[in-house]
Amino acid sequence: MQSERLFKQIEFIREIDKLKYIRRKTKLFNSDRNENDAEHSWHLALMAMVLAEHADDSVDLLKVLKMVLIHDIVEIDTGDIFLHDTTRNHTNTEEELAAAKRIFGLLPDNLARELTETWMEFEAGETPEAKFAKTLDRLEPLLQNMSNNGGTWAEFDITHGKVMEKAKIIKYSSAVIWQYTETRIRESVAKGILKA
Amino acid sequence: MQSERLFKQIEFIREIDKLKYIRRKTKLFNSDRNENDAEHSWHLALMAMVLAEHADDSVDLLKVLKMVLIHDIVEIDTGDIFLHDTTRNHTNTEEELAAAKRIFGLLPDNLARELTETWMEFEAGETPEAKFAKTLDRLEPLLQNMSNNGGTWAEFDITHGKVMEKAKIIKYSSAVIWQYTETRIRESVAKGILKA
Repeated sequence: MQSERLFKQIEFIREIDKLKYIRRKTKLFNSDRNENDAEHSWHLALMAMVLAEHADDSVDLLKVLKMVLIHDIVEIDTGDIFLHDTTRNHTNTEEELAAAKRIFGLLPDNLARELTETWMEFEAGETPEAKFAKTLDRLEPLLQNMSNNGGTWAEFDITHGKVMEKAKIIKYSSAVIWQYTETRIRESVAKGILKA
Repeated sequence: MQSERLFKQIEFIREIDKLKYIRRKTKLFNSDRNENDAEHSWHLALMAMVLAEHADDSVDLLKVLKMVLIHDIVEIDTGDIFLHDTTRNHTNTEEELAAAKRIFGLLPDNLARELTETWMEFEAGETPEAKFAKTLDRLEPLLQNMSNNGGTWAEFDITHGKVMEKAKIIKYSSAVIWQYTETRIRESVAKGILKA
């Protein structure tokens, strides 16, 4: 009985290795090497650990960590969807839900249910933990682009307005991080690495 | 005051991006592409989330996650040390301690202290959380080598005896995972992908 659970868990562990091949549009800091989803998820987890104190509503760090660690696993099936892609939906698509069911469904029932619910809570973005996880998910590529002379902003011709539109989720989660982010975005325009 | 803390935290977040360049000897599952330390740390975190129920002594999952997420950060300065390298120490070296102090020391004091202590607890390997984190750190490359026709065992001429020596830490943390691991190692010898 126990070993049957373990076999399913190991099968899941093998399957999610594929996240290491999902290439994001964003590049590593000061680099022209694309980041992959596993690296990105690890980085958000570390950001959660050191930035949780700045969440306006106190957050359950364990839940935030679970969210950021699994938030992109569906992209094993759907591929990375660029934040500023206007031709595809980003959240709650049927394709993503099917991917979550397939991949988390490799696990024993109770774990499959827990991870699917955690992922759906992240996607909905309504609880303090989900809002904070999304704040980190926005902040990392902003920092990367600033370190890369504009990065994907320059590459895909993204303007200040579009960046602010996507970044504003940070405002509803952390006044401290928002103040920092807004200032850095304004500086990026002044430096000419982000179009006004 | 608050923004000074945030500046330090952002500096740490930038610095640890370098972990994505630290190449391990072990390859991804069914692959000849080396894994990097950030991917490896992410994978161990997911393993902790789905395998924690198998720890013999119940573990604080949040602490295990923190441990596996930061356990290799010192390698930004020291480089990856191969598990079966007999010419270099693996734990508690002065070089590693200096790296921990430098890198975690970028953070505000309370966080620097917390992460340094968490890393030292992992290195000591005495608490249930540290033993379980080390179990995951052993298990992942075993599974990868089995998927890769022997992987680093074949590449570096590692024998069954040496593999068992390094794997036995699993025995003191999880009877269920140990039974599974022992069986798989025995099968690997039978298949000829691990030398007796």
